[in-house]
Amino acid sequence: MIVEMRNDADDRDVEEVCAALRAVGGTPRLIRWAAAQRLVVSADLKCAPGGLTDRAGVRRVVQPSGDFCLTSREFHSAGTVVEVGGIGIGGSEFVVIAGPCAVESAEQLREISDAVTEAGAVILRGGAFKPRTSPYSFQGLGMKGLRLLDRRRRQTGLPVVTEVMQPEQVELVAASSDVLQIGTRNMQNFPLLKEVGRSRRPVLLKRGMCATVKEWLLAAEYVMAEGNPHIVLCERGIRTFETASRFTLDLTAVPIVRRHSHLPVLIDPSHATGHAYLVGPMTLAAAAAGADGVMIDVHTDRAAARCDGSQALRPAEFKALVADLERLLSGFDRKLARNPDGPGAAGSLVPGRAVQPPTRSAARW
Amino acid sequence: MIVEMRNDADDRDVEEVCAALRAVGGTPRLIRWAAAQRLVVSADLKCAPGGLTDRAGVRRVVQPSGDFCLTSREFHSAGTVVEVGGIGIGGSEFVVIAGPCAVESAEQLREISDAVTEAGAVILRGGAFKPRTSPYSFQGLGMKGLRLLDRRRRQTGLPVVTEVMQPEQVELVAASSDVLQIGTRNMQNFPLLKEVGRSRRPVLLKRGMCATVKEWLLAAEYVMAEGNPHIVLCERGIRTFETASRFTLDLTAVPIVRRHSHLPVLIDPSHATGHAYLVGPMTLAAAAAGADGVMIDVHTDRAAARCDGSQALRPAEFKALVADLERLLSGFDRKLARNPDGPGAAGSLVPGRAVQPPTRSAARW
Amino acid sequence: MIVEMRNDADDRDVEEVCAALRAVGGTPRLIRWAAAQRLVVSADLKCAPGGLTDRAGVRRVVQPSGDFCLTSREFHSAGTVVEVGGIGIGGSEFVVIAGPCAVESAEQLREISDAVTEAGAVILRGGAFKPRTSPYSFQGLGMKGLRLLDRRRRQTGLPVVTEVMQPEQVELVAASSDVLQIGTRNMQNFPLLKEVGRSRRPVLLKRGMCATVKEWLLAAEYVMAEGNPHIVLCERGIRTFETASRFTLDLTAVPIVRRHSHLPVLIDPSHATGHAYLVGPMTLAAAAAGADGVMIDVHTDRAAARCDGSQALRPAEFKALVADLERLLSGFDRKLARNPDGPGAAGSLVPGRAVQPPTRSAARW
Amino acid sequence: MIVEMRNDADDRDVEEVCAALRAVGGTPRLIRWAAAQRLVVSADLKCAPGGLTDRAGVRRVVQPSGDFCLTSREFHSAGTVVEVGGIGIGGSEFVVIAGPCAVESAEQLREISDAVTEAGAVILRGGAFKPRTSPYSFQGLGMKGLRLLDRRRRQTGLPVVTEVMQPEQVELVAASSDVLQIGTRNMQNFPLLKEVGRSRRPVLLKRGMCATVKEWLLAAEYVMAEGNPHIVLCERGIRTFETASRFTLDLTAVPIVRRHSHLPVLIDPSHATGHAYLVGPMTLAAAAAGADGVMIDVHTDRAAARCDGSQALRPAEFKALVADLERLLSGFDRKLARNPDGPGAAGSLVPGRAVQPPTRSAARW
Repeated sequence: MIVEMRNDADDRDVEEVCAALRAVGGTPRLIRWAAAQRLVVSADLKCAPGGLTDRAGVRRVVQPSGDFCLTSREFHSAGTVVEVGGIGIGGSEFVVIAGPCAVESAEQLREISDAVTEAGAVILRGGAFKPRTSPYSFQGLGMKGLRLLDRRRRQTGLPVVTEVMQPEQVELVAASSDVLQIGTRNMQNFPLLKEVGRSRRPVLLKRGMCATVKEWLLAAEYVMAEGNPHIVLCERGIRTFETASRFTLDLTAVPIVRRHSHLPVLIDPSHATGHAYLVGPMTLAAAAAGADGVMIDVHTDRAAARCDGSQALRPAEFKALVADLERLLSGFDRKLARNPDGPGAAGSLVPGRAVQPPTRSAARW
Repeated sequence: MIVEMRNDADDRDVEEVCAALRAVGGTPRLIRWAAAQRLVVSADLKCAPGGLTDRAGVRRVVQPSGDFCLTSREFHSAGTVVEVGGIGIGGSEFVVIAGPCAVESAEQLREISDAVTEAGAVILRGGAFKPRTSPYSFQGLGMKGLRLLDRRRRQTGLPVVTEVMQPEQVELVAASSDVLQIGTRNMQNFPLLKEVGRSRRPVLLKRGMCATVKEWLLAAEYVMAEGNPHIVLCERGIRTFETASRFTLDLTAVPIVRRHSHLPVLIDPSHATGHAYLVGPMTLAAAAAGADGVMIDVHTDRAAARCDGSQALRPAEFKALVADLERLLSGFDRKLARNPDGPGAAGSLVPGRAVQPPTRSAARW
Repeated sequence: MIVEMRNDADDRDVEEVCAALRAVGGTPRLIRWAAAQRLVVSADLKCAPGGLTDRAGVRRVVQPSGDFCLTSREFHSAGTVVEVGGIGIGGSEFVVIAGPCAVESAEQLREISDAVTEAGAVILRGGAFKPRTSPYSFQGLGMKGLRLLDRRRRQTGLPVVTEVMQPEQVELVAASSDVLQIGTRNMQNFPLLKEVGRSRRPVLLKRGMCATVKEWLLAAEYVMAEGNPHIVLCERGIRTFETASRFTLDLTAVPIVRRHSHLPVLIDPSHATGHAYLVGPMTLAAAAAGADGVMIDVHTDRAAARCDGSQALRPAEFKALVADLERLLSGFDRKLARNPDGPGAAGSLVPGRAVQPPTRSAARW
Repeated sequence: MIVEMRNDADDRDVEEVCAALRAVGGTPRLIRWAAAQRLVVSADLKCAPGGLTDRAGVRRVVQPSGDFCLTSREFHSAGTVVEVGGIGIGGSEFVVIAGPCAVESAEQLREISDAVTEAGAVILRGGAFKPRTSPYSFQGLGMKGLRLLDRRRRQTGLPVVTEVMQPEQVELVAASSDVLQIGTRNMQNFPLLKEVGRSRRPVLLKRGMCATVKEWLLAAEYVMAEGNPHIVLCERGIRTFETASRFTLDLTAVPIVRRHSHLPVLIDPSHATGHAYLVGPMTLAAAAAGADGVMIDVHTDRAAARCDGSQALRPAEFKALVADLERLLSGFDRKLARNPDGPGAAGSLVPGRAVQPPTRSAARW
């Protein structure tokens, strides 16, 4: 159960609500929400005590029917729009994120970010800390990679998404990027989820490769329960018996998430399929299924890539795909998100224009 | 290895080719192909004996690189178009098949077939023999259902696809319908595959719920190795750990099949997802991913359906979906397949106009 | 619901029971059971009409709580013992079935059957009709293989289990062997299940590689609903993401089956694991988990085997394994089943002693 | 490739080996091993430079054939025995670990630890930090739970295994327990793996619920590459389509691990199956398959358990199971590990006898 307090509710109002919930066996939990608002959540109560909605300071009481509270569409019937550098993820526009799997050098990052921006990407992806199955594989440039990403976003104004792998890195990564990515292997790293929940940065939460949609939404619930509603979900393939693709892209998750949750959902066709020739069809399919965007690996020199080269698109392939996307979206009166400063602006040098963390997401949160 | 003989090759030419293959350890197999042509297949040979292409009667020798022979795109680089009642599956047009999961009565079949035809379906689906997990569930009307389907197609000219469950039924079902459906539980029912291979009817081969794409294509190879090239593949969801949908639709299989095989591929979003609200998004996604068509459950009275009612669309929902499909396809200069006799024709009463079995598929086979 | 009639119930008693069930909305189904007994099953009724147990001819009414009727342990609380050539499967003794994956020649069959009998196997396995993923793989010797098996069992008195792949083969295979095996790919081949259900031969029902335990028991229910209670279940590995073994042996299925059903359950560690080095540990684990027996591939010349050689044990390995089994079982006061004619008897030449089909299973059915 | 240096090798010898590897394109990595030994690992080299074995300070060069280095049995052909409080895991004795899923109170911990010790457990399990799917579920007592565990082990001398969820907790948890458990959701939490690798405490590494055996061993490789060889693997069920058990216990992983790696492997039948009635059969099966031990949830009041109560054994059930285990093991001349101070000793109050961290594992490492 969620008790949404009015903005003018005082501490005493909140405490009385908590007491009322405890009196019927609940374990209330106070959440300080993005826009100075407070919620009292008691997930274990399935029936509100009488008179709760009439109490001082209470705006409304929501009783979601499933296991989710804050992530449930029953709590927030409109879709959430997460704002990243002036771009809204989850609104009517379709968002293209692209970049290298891993940051390898300043030169590589510059070349690829220019190419993807020119082709239509509005957010840059790039891994500094790379979780790798073997300890002997390239683990990313680490801090150096993070600095390269930060410098690039300051030069170009292009927002950056990059992975954070442990709680103590969250502040550091938040200072150098715009979106904190939680990777598939960390979807149930609960200390990490709580830490990004305490941040105010948008979070890109990848689905665990063997997580059900329900478990994925409960992972998002961990982040929201700490007060951070700026969450973008990202389906990246689940593990099945099929070996012709690296994972099995579960595109059906898109309408399932949209029905049960208000959070926006992206697709990562590169990591899901593992093969460049599958990225185009799956990107178009994602748009048709109602996804809010895609995140795509692009590399200028696929063979030389230090990580997952076989799944990266070449810039020209990526550009052609974005054009296809636009044709598909136009049939549904949807558009690609464009950089707020006009075509090409994000790719040009705008010294010093760093992207600010969102003060609010675009929805009424 | 496939040795494609010229149409004017005589028995002696064929026998000499076989002898040459046996001499190097092969086990040649003669296949009498649709259009009076003969092929000699020796899947166990990876290297052709010298001078084979110069032998009398030999048109060409194809050595596919994978495990497939006749289903491989290396054998037939253009896509195959399977003709069903004047409609081509696998060409530039997108084919919509629709109808009830199970035939329940003449009235139900008439009502639903009228509704789906009016909305844009060009082939009617309907199960007479229903494979059900429990012996106590409704097993379909059987022979009576088959007669109802046959009468309906004769009345309307609408081609019909229906499932055949055992070898001895093949002739009977072929006489009363236009496309022989092999269900997911029978994808590796090899005697059945061989029997439909000996038929000349088009075959709709559903993917086994735990079959890899490779196993699925090898099942198609069973049909082709008996001489029947009129095969339409149909992805219908694979079994995974996810329970929010009935199965997990593996849409990535579409571009994988298209790369490795020349056979057309459809999607069955109804059985894959098990929920009506997921059918629309997955249909559009299938079209965007490059599928050649879809097969959709439609029912006029979902609650009363005797089989899988929760996944059936209502006629109005189906009609709206077909309109969406058309908008999507138009962005890619593709069209919906329409009944050859013009809009509405298939749904009108055209007594006696039974659909003929295809004498050829539309490709150069 | 199951209404078990008394043996002296007449047709009129049965008809009145059926009428009473129909009156409350049921669809009763009469099953003529092995030992001249009759059952009326109405799986759709969850509540018995008043006075049913008092009706003439009614022995008892059973209302299983789950989806199963005849396979449920609630119907038959003692375990079923299926008798094969004097050996009981499902009793206190542990049954070892062994032999070649496929029958290849009289010589091969003789050699291997002698070896496995000498080592302690009491039933011979051997495939005549082999379902293979590719149409170009060795498909078994077919009829010739069946004749070789039949001759061998007549010579030695050793019961034989072999696979039947289509309904019309059932009679033929039943005439030449002792147990009808339904392979994993045919677990939901319902016409085949019904046909073996109409036979009186014991049936070895392999679990489908992607079937849940529930679906597996419902497949057994198909066989029982036709009146054949002589069913032995066989777990042979399910399909998962793991590739280090060919399938994933689901040994937990043993205690699950034992809790929910009265049918005996075997393990096929050879097909489950695909590697000879895994067969021994999994055989011992199966015995420890409470399985009623195992079925093991043995080959005298693994490298030359025409089918699945890598998973076959050599005779010496098999013999050592049987010795280990005995040590393990002795700790639990269980024994290996031995040929009724004493050690060695089954392997010796006993011309003309063909095994008779069971007139009853050993339990009180 | 692994270059094992002699104990008397000096820094210069090591540097020269590294230089030789770099000269042929390798990226050598120095590992300071448990017993003052040094290894130079260069996983990217598949062929040793000439004369490497003859260099000063080099004991031997090992070139494992697969993806593993330090975890490979090719590096260490004998099995590793990990010593925990005088008990060897991985030797001839079978180790039983038991205790509550979560520590709930001093009283509960005392009661259960007494019960399991009396029945034959030699190591106590108990979660202080509990990773839970929902943020609203009981998350363990945290620090308080850790203190209760620590007090209990000091009182009884019973070694304790408990989960550590984030890198910064490692030191703390190591100071209060004997074995650091890495849970299934953290199997690929690489910062955590590295941190426990820098500790000298034994590590119990649970298999990820969707990890292949290969990925699991590579996770262990992360720990070993930091210099900690005291690793015990623990299979706890993988995620499949089957729902009759909570996960599917992959018992075949035991002989697979034993073939490819020298590390000991345990089974957690409680979390794998999720049902108390399945724990006994799977424990016996684990012992028969060659596992080195089991870890079992026991609770004195199953209904009141705050976490996973349905899978916990009651003390009497646990005691009966241990007796069964003993009978099974005796057939193979194996024994249950017993507390070094004799029967009952571990359970009695031995104030102040805290278990020391191992200075060596029992093998020749």
